[in-house]
Amino acid sequence: MISFSQAQEIIYNALKAPWLKTEYIPLQEAQGRTLAEEVTSEVDLPPFDNSAMDGFAVKFNPGIRSWTIKGEIPAGHYTDFIADPISTVSIMTGSRLPEGFDTVIPIEDVFVREDNVILNTNAMFTKGMNVSKKGQDLMKGQTALGKGTFLKSPQIAALAACGRGKVKVYEKLKIGVLATGDELTEIDQAPSGDKIRASNLYSILSAVREINMIPVNCGIARDSKEEIKSAVSSALEKCDILITTGGVSAGKFDYVKEVFTDIGIKTLFHRVNIKPGKPVLFGLMEGEGHTKPVFGLPGNPVSSLVTFYLFVKTNIMKCFGLSEQPPLRAVLKKSITKSDSKRHFVRGLVSRDELGVISAVPVGQQSSGNLVQMSMSNCLIVIEEERLNPQEGEEVECIMI
Amino acid sequence: MISFSQAQEIIYNALKAPWLKTEYIPLQEAQGRTLAEEVTSEVDLPPFDNSAMDGFAVKFNPGIRSWTIKGEIPAGHYTDFIADPISTVSIMTGSRLPEGFDTVIPIEDVFVREDNVILNTNAMFTKGMNVSKKGQDLMKGQTALGKGTFLKSPQIAALAACGRGKVKVYEKLKIGVLATGDELTEIDQAPSGDKIRASNLYSILSAVREINMIPVNCGIARDSKEEIKSAVSSALEKCDILITTGGVSAGKFDYVKEVFTDIGIKTLFHRVNIKPGKPVLFGLMEGEGHTKPVFGLPGNPVSSLVTFYLFVKTNIMKCFGLSEQPPLRAVLKKSITKSDSKRHFVRGLVSRDELGVISAVPVGQQSSGNLVQMSMSNCLIVIEEERLNPQEGEEVECIMI
Repeated sequence: MISFSQAQEIIYNALKAPWLKTEYIPLQEAQGRTLAEEVTSEVDLPPFDNSAMDGFAVKFNPGIRSWTIKGEIPAGHYTDFIADPISTVSIMTGSRLPEGFDTVIPIEDVFVREDNVILNTNAMFTKGMNVSKKGQDLMKGQTALGKGTFLKSPQIAALAACGRGKVKVYEKLKIGVLATGDELTEIDQAPSGDKIRASNLYSILSAVREINMIPVNCGIARDSKEEIKSAVSSALEKCDILITTGGVSAGKFDYVKEVFTDIGIKTLFHRVNIKPGKPVLFGLMEGEGHTKPVFGLPGNPVSSLVTFYLFVKTNIMKCFGLSEQPPLRAVLKKSITKSDSKRHFVRGLVSRDELGVISAVPVGQQSSGNLVQMSMSNCLIVIEEERLNPQEGEEVECIMI
Repeated sequence: MISFSQAQEIIYNALKAPWLKTEYIPLQEAQGRTLAEEVTSEVDLPPFDNSAMDGFAVKFNPGIRSWTIKGEIPAGHYTDFIADPISTVSIMTGSRLPEGFDTVIPIEDVFVREDNVILNTNAMFTKGMNVSKKGQDLMKGQTALGKGTFLKSPQIAALAACGRGKVKVYEKLKIGVLATGDELTEIDQAPSGDKIRASNLYSILSAVREINMIPVNCGIARDSKEEIKSAVSSALEKCDILITTGGVSAGKFDYVKEVFTDIGIKTLFHRVNIKPGKPVLFGLMEGEGHTKPVFGLPGNPVSSLVTFYLFVKTNIMKCFGLSEQPPLRAVLKKSITKSDSKRHFVRGLVSRDELGVISAVPVGQQSSGNLVQMSMSNCLIVIEEERLNPQEGEEVECIMI
C-alpha cells in the first residue's frame, strides 16, 4: 500500500509524457482547452498611447492650469494636432493620444467654458497621468501566452488581442468508462432481487464531461474473467485512457487486477492509504501507438467518484495546464471520528456566514454507498494521515467538488 | 452611484423571476444543467441490507467467536441461508445480506481453516458492523434532489440511482454579446491607425460559454445612435439576455444609455462604486414575452470581463442553483495602493506554498487595458470599500476566476 502523495506522483509522471495530439480550432471554441503553441504578439499592446479616461489631453507643463480646446478625438477617429502647453484636445476613453500630448485630465476635474478648460483647484495633475502607454501590456514580439496554457476567458481575450482567430490546442482525450459487476443493471431498468443500478457508469461519464474530455461509454461487464478481458481489450482500442469501476478489492470475484495483468497492463499500484477508495489501481498499457493509462476505481459509487476527483481529474487537469486550486480553509463545525492512519476525504458542506467565517460540516453517514447524501455535499474535507479525531473548531482544508 | 452589494441585489431580484423555460434531456447530457423538477426515489437506497466489506456475514451473538461456512453470496447472486449464531456465509462488498444475518466481519479479521472461520483475538466485533442498511441513503418516496439543484457528477449519480434516464432541466439562456465602438476591428484584421481588435467580443462570448449558456455573437456596432439602436433591437429579438460592451461612460459618444432609454429599456443603475468597472449599466426590457435583462458593460477589455464575472456570472449561476463558492483567504504578498472608497477587484495570482500557506500577489499594472497581464492572473483580490492601502502580510479575500 502506498501513500496518497506517492500515488499522485506516480500518476502525474506517467501522464505528463508528451503524448498529446494537437489540432487547430477557431478561437470561439477554445474556452476550456489548452494551448499547444507559444503565442506572440505581432503588434504592441496597446498599439498606441491612448487615454484611460474621458477628458482632455494636454502637453504637461507644471505651471499651466488652463488650456484652449483645439478639437476632439473620438475613439477610432484619430486626427493630428500641434502640441503646445496651452492647447488641449477633448479625448475619449480608448482614443489615441495626439502626437506630443502626454497627459490626460479627467472631465470631472475641469471647468469648461466655451473653448477654455480650467483645472479644478484640488485636482491631481502629474505628467503622464491617465495614459495607457503603447506596449505597456505587451511589446511586439513578446510572448503573450506560453505553450501549455489553459484557456479561460482572460486568455481568450489575450489571444483575440493578438489577432488569433484560430489556435493550436491539444486534442481532447477520449476517456472510456467500463463498469464491472454481476449486481449491476442499466439505470432505466427497475432493479430486481439483489441488483442495483449502475449509477457509477453515469457519474464517471459525467465527471469526464466535467473536465471537458470526451466520455466513451464502454458499458457493463459481468464478473467473469473472459467477459472483463474482452470488454477491457475492446475499450482500450477506443480510448486514450480507460477507467473501470469495481472488481479491484479483495473479494473472490474481483478479477480486474488479474485481467489487467493477463492482457499486459503493468500495474503501478493497486492500493492507496486513503478512505474512501483504498482499493484503487493504476496501470499502463504499452501498445503500438502510445502508452495508455488505466485506472481501476472501486465499485462503490461514492468511492469511485471520490477517487476520480482525486486521481483522474487532478492529474489530467494538471497535464492540461490547469493547476489545482488551493484548498479552502474552513472551521470544522462538527467533530469527526478518525482512528486510523489513512488520509480521509469526508463529504462535507462548506459555507460562509455573514461575518465572513468559512465553516465546513460533514454531510450524512459517510458510508461509501450513500450517493444521495454525497450529492448534498459541495466539498471533500481532508483529514491528513497523522491527524486523529479532528474536533469542532479546528481548521481543516476542503477540496471543492 | 450605488454600492456593489446594492447592485448585486438589484440584479438578482430581477433575474430570479420564474421566467425560465424547461426541457427534458437524457441524463448523460445533464452535467452542468439545473434540475427543474423534484426527484424522488421509487426504491429504497440501498434497496436491501448489503455488505460494505469482503468478509463473512454472521447472526451476531457476543459470546460466539467461530463459525461454520455454509456457502457464499457473490454480489448479484443472492441465495437464502438459515440464520443461526454458529453459521456464516462468505460475502462480497455490495452483496445482499442473507435474511437473519446482521453483521459482517472483514476478511482481514479472521483465520479460515477449511469450513471454519475464527475471529482474530483483537478484532472489533459489534452488532451491525460493516452493513449498509436498506434505505440508509434514502427511503423510498423521499426527495433525492430538489427543484433548482445544479447538476454535477454527484447529483448525476443520485439521479442514476433513482433510475432517471431523462430529467427535466431549465433551458440554457441565449446570451447575446454586442460590442460597440468606432475603434474596433474584427480580430482577424490587422488593426490600422488608431483601431484595436474587438477582443472583448471574444472574451465575453467565451465567458458565456464558461457558464454553460448559449453565446450569441451580435457583432460590432459603430458609435452612432442609429446603428446602436438597430443593433440592440435586433439583438434583443435573438436572445434572453443582452450584454453590450462600451459606450457607457461619460464620453461625448457614449450613446448606449441614451439608446437603451429610447427603445424602452428601463435602467435600474448605471454606475457602481467599484474599480475597475464603475460605468456599468443594468436594465430591463419589458416585452410581449418575458422581461429581458440587459447589461451594459464598460468597453475596456479588463473592465468588461471583470464586470461580467462579478455581475453576470455570479447572478446567473445563483439563479441556476450554483451558489457562489466562498472566497479564498490569502496573505497579501505585496502592498496595494488604494486611496478611494470604491471596492477594488485587483487581478492577482493565488498560490499555496509547501507549508500550506496561501498567498496572493497583484499581477501587472492593473491598468484596465492590460489584457495580457490579466491573463496571467487566476483571481480577483477584493479590497473592500472602507479598506485603504492593504499592506503586505494582511489577509485578503480572493475570488478565483
